[in-house]
Amino acid sequence: MSELEKQIQIYYDTNKIIKAYHLAFYLAGWDSETGCPIGTIQSRSDALGTLSELGFKIRTSKEYNDAIDYLYEHREELDPVLKHEIIGQKEDIEDTKKFPIEEVVELSKLENEIHPVYVQAKLASDFNMFKPYLEKMIGFQKRKIEYISKDNQFNNYKGYDVLLNSFEKDMTMEEYDKFFGLLKEKLVPFIKKVTAKKLDYDREFTTKVYPKEQQAIMSEYLRDVMDFDRNYTILRESEHPFTSGNGNKDVRITTHYYEDCISSSMLSIIHEMGHGLYELHVSDEIDATMSGGGASMAMHESQSRFMENMIGRSKAFWDTHYAKLQSIFPEQLGNVKEDDFYKYMNEVQCSLIRTEADELTYPLHIMVRYEIEKKIFNGSVTVDELPSEWNRLYKEYLGIDVPNDKAGVLQDIHWALGSFGYFPTYALGSAYAAQFYNALSKDVDVDKAVRSGNLKEINAWLKENIHKYGSSLDPKDIILKATGEEFNPNYYIDYLINKYSKIYDIK
Amino acid sequence: MSELEKQIQIYYDTNKIIKAYHLAFYLAGWDSETGCPIGTIQSRSDALGTLSELGFKIRTSKEYNDAIDYLYEHREELDPVLKHEIIGQKEDIEDTKKFPIEEVVELSKLENEIHPVYVQAKLASDFNMFKPYLEKMIGFQKRKIEYISKDNQFNNYKGYDVLLNSFEKDMTMEEYDKFFGLLKEKLVPFIKKVTAKKLDYDREFTTKVYPKEQQAIMSEYLRDVMDFDRNYTILRESEHPFTSGNGNKDVRITTHYYEDCISSSMLSIIHEMGHGLYELHVSDEIDATMSGGGASMAMHESQSRFMENMIGRSKAFWDTHYAKLQSIFPEQLGNVKEDDFYKYMNEVQCSLIRTEADELTYPLHIMVRYEIEKKIFNGSVTVDELPSEWNRLYKEYLGIDVPNDKAGVLQDIHWALGSFGYFPTYALGSAYAAQFYNALSKDVDVDKAVRSGNLKEINAWLKENIHKYGSSLDPKDIILKATGEEFNPNYYIDYLINKYSKIYDIK
Repeated sequence: MSELEKQIQIYYDTNKIIKAYHLAFYLAGWDSETGCPIGTIQSRSDALGTLSELGFKIRTSKEYNDAIDYLYEHREELDPVLKHEIIGQKEDIEDTKKFPIEEVVELSKLENEIHPVYVQAKLASDFNMFKPYLEKMIGFQKRKIEYISKDNQFNNYKGYDVLLNSFEKDMTMEEYDKFFGLLKEKLVPFIKKVTAKKLDYDREFTTKVYPKEQQAIMSEYLRDVMDFDRNYTILRESEHPFTSGNGNKDVRITTHYYEDCISSSMLSIIHEMGHGLYELHVSDEIDATMSGGGASMAMHESQSRFMENMIGRSKAFWDTHYAKLQSIFPEQLGNVKEDDFYKYMNEVQCSLIRTEADELTYPLHIMVRYEIEKKIFNGSVTVDELPSEWNRLYKEYLGIDVPNDKAGVLQDIHWALGSFGYFPTYALGSAYAAQFYNALSKDVDVDKAVRSGNLKEINAWLKENIHKYGSSLDPKDIILKATGEEFNPNYYIDYLINKYSKIYDIK
Repeated sequence: MSELEKQIQIYYDTNKIIKAYHLAFYLAGWDSETGCPIGTIQSRSDALGTLSELGFKIRTSKEYNDAIDYLYEHREELDPVLKHEIIGQKEDIEDTKKFPIEEVVELSKLENEIHPVYVQAKLASDFNMFKPYLEKMIGFQKRKIEYISKDNQFNNYKGYDVLLNSFEKDMTMEEYDKFFGLLKEKLVPFIKKVTAKKLDYDREFTTKVYPKEQQAIMSEYLRDVMDFDRNYTILRESEHPFTSGNGNKDVRITTHYYEDCISSSMLSIIHEMGHGLYELHVSDEIDATMSGGGASMAMHESQSRFMENMIGRSKAFWDTHYAKLQSIFPEQLGNVKEDDFYKYMNEVQCSLIRTEADELTYPLHIMVRYEIEKKIFNGSVTVDELPSEWNRLYKEYLGIDVPNDKAGVLQDIHWALGSFGYFPTYALGSAYAAQFYNALSKDVDVDKAVRSGNLKEINAWLKENIHKYGSSLDPKDIILKATGEEFNPNYYIDYLINKYSKIYDIK
């Protein structure tokens, strides 16, 4: 066995152990989210802490790190998947090494403190309560930028770009500015035209009750439509919908049924199945490595939003499946025209809360957050000014007044988690989706495929062009391979303006 | 730190890791039984295998075993709980050491092969298919007896006693013979009298449909009645009911709803809550050690059967709760007299299948198995003769003809798992329960306590006298402490004859 083979073996053997620990955390997380006894969460934290220490020891063992160093030195001799993986691992290790141990200890302390304070502050709609902790967190982010950008052998990113790159590889302010600039220029005036109008349809059905048991029947029907393989997936209920996966043979989604709203659970299930299909379709060879899962947050979000918005809210989809929905809810929908239901599924309204926003106004919510984060890291806004800056931007882009901080600057948990640079990936995901949609349309008659009643053909294209690679390629490379060009936000703008011009009859 | 303190620390620190691995297996097991994607069970077996290896390495590490050796040498200096625990650990280690590695490898191979063969043989009702594997398994058990009994520093058990002791400490043929002898003498003729009669009641309600959703309402009601703390417990559905626990803060039970049978799920939930209360009531100090959980299989079974049979099938219980059941099933039970329902819950019938047997005839099923196992290990029956011996004993004790091996010698999985010596603990559990019941009755007005609508008072007695000790005492010591005397099977015989003489009006 050559030294290279030996080091590869060490790397693979250690990954096997890391994956075994990962399974334990995956199962514990799923169990916590889907109904373990409330009182056990505290009692088992010791055991989880022990497993976490054991996993940490393995990941940081000299043998493993030496193997990664050796393989990084010899990266040109590796197959492309392993080479890509080792570069990522090496970069992670080098980044981690740059943090002084005092910083790590202090951050861990802050993370423990900030979460309950954030929850309380949001409940009380009191930004001042949260402020000192947020200041500390932002301070840490600024030092993080300094640590990582100093003597960086992998890239030259500075400032906020360091954070943006950590969530979406090689996406920087330069590219996001172009993207959000276009949104501001084209979308803000268009949305003003749209929201000046009101869709004309009878809203009585939106006030009816849709019992959970019947909604669950529709969920199972949608699993068939989406070709979401029951052998490797389950659907459960939880407080907030999410997708959880452990490799391409175990993907779990949840939903939450609201009996006063027929659209919520259907759209969230379609959204989560979009995430889930990505995980399921990673090729077995890639799944066996550490390059499984999705290529990035934005790539993942592109797949869920593609399914939710471009398929699940499309005319073709409801032309095909509305009769089924009517048959499940004959009393509530029996006399409701499909066209009215379609309008309801695509109604646009400027609103306060990001997570409840419609497809068209959603990116404006992200734009507000992106602009604020930019200002935080170029020093042109203080933490004190965040609420007023937030409210000013909501007025400017969405035309609405923010009544309090709970519905304003405190609405999202991301900053409390230290996730700065994360928000833009949400909008980016939708834009990727539109570009993929355009490429898909050249190979597949999407309208016909949707009307076939089953998404097999569309899924096959997504698998072949995106999903099968897992995270073995960078997002930019996947986009280039799948669409033949670099990321281009115009597809997204065109898609939105085209779709909503029709629905709102705007010339 | 003294050497003793140092070794105790090593012992505790290692147990912390062993418990952490245990949590991972606990969660994986629960997940498998309650609805993970079917297709993932195979795919995650590698990761579970890795965790299992890691756990095995820790348990068999020199440091841990040296600590146990040291503590065993110094056992007189330890507190009683730790002393008891270390003796058990030392005995386990010494027993394990006695097996030549070739035996361990061969057994593991046999275990893998025998299970699918057993399942197939049972399906085909073909004992001959199973026979060669069963012969091998019995051969292994006989050699196991030789290994363990040779130079044993902990006890002098020989032959079948070695196996009996491994399932219930210090229970041997001498004691079981007394127990089953009494059953044969007193119970067999009594059961003949009982089954010669037929309970007189209108059985129409036993053919009605009892929808699952309504049964689930009754389940929640029963959780309240049993005072089964929702903070630390959950109830789910599974193919077969079971209890699963990980310490005294996480206890999970399952049930299976049969819509054509109203008694099945209620009794199984009460049974599983009996197991569950045992786990919940272990004191926190004991739970923190390796002496949590129940003291033995028979002790556990005593608690579940106490709740199921002595409480859950009692007149006081249904006097108190039948009106609630009627209110949940007004159409099915509205016009059914409580007395008829009580008769239905306690009807006796000689039947073929152990797991479906009623309270009175159940021990006869166990007696058949005990007699056969005795003969296997004293060499007075060959494997060839097992089916005919089985059928002969069913005819003798239960008066019924066994139509085929599926309903006969192949009905239980225990022998395929190598669990010889296990069956007697089932009957022993019921007998323990009767002795505990008698002791409880001296301190608590059981009838009044049951009629109070909530089992708090009874639970408190069980906790104080049995549950809180976990497995830190041997069953014999718990029985002596709780009842003031050694195990005495007469309580069981008296309880059964007294109860069923009333129900069947036998003078």
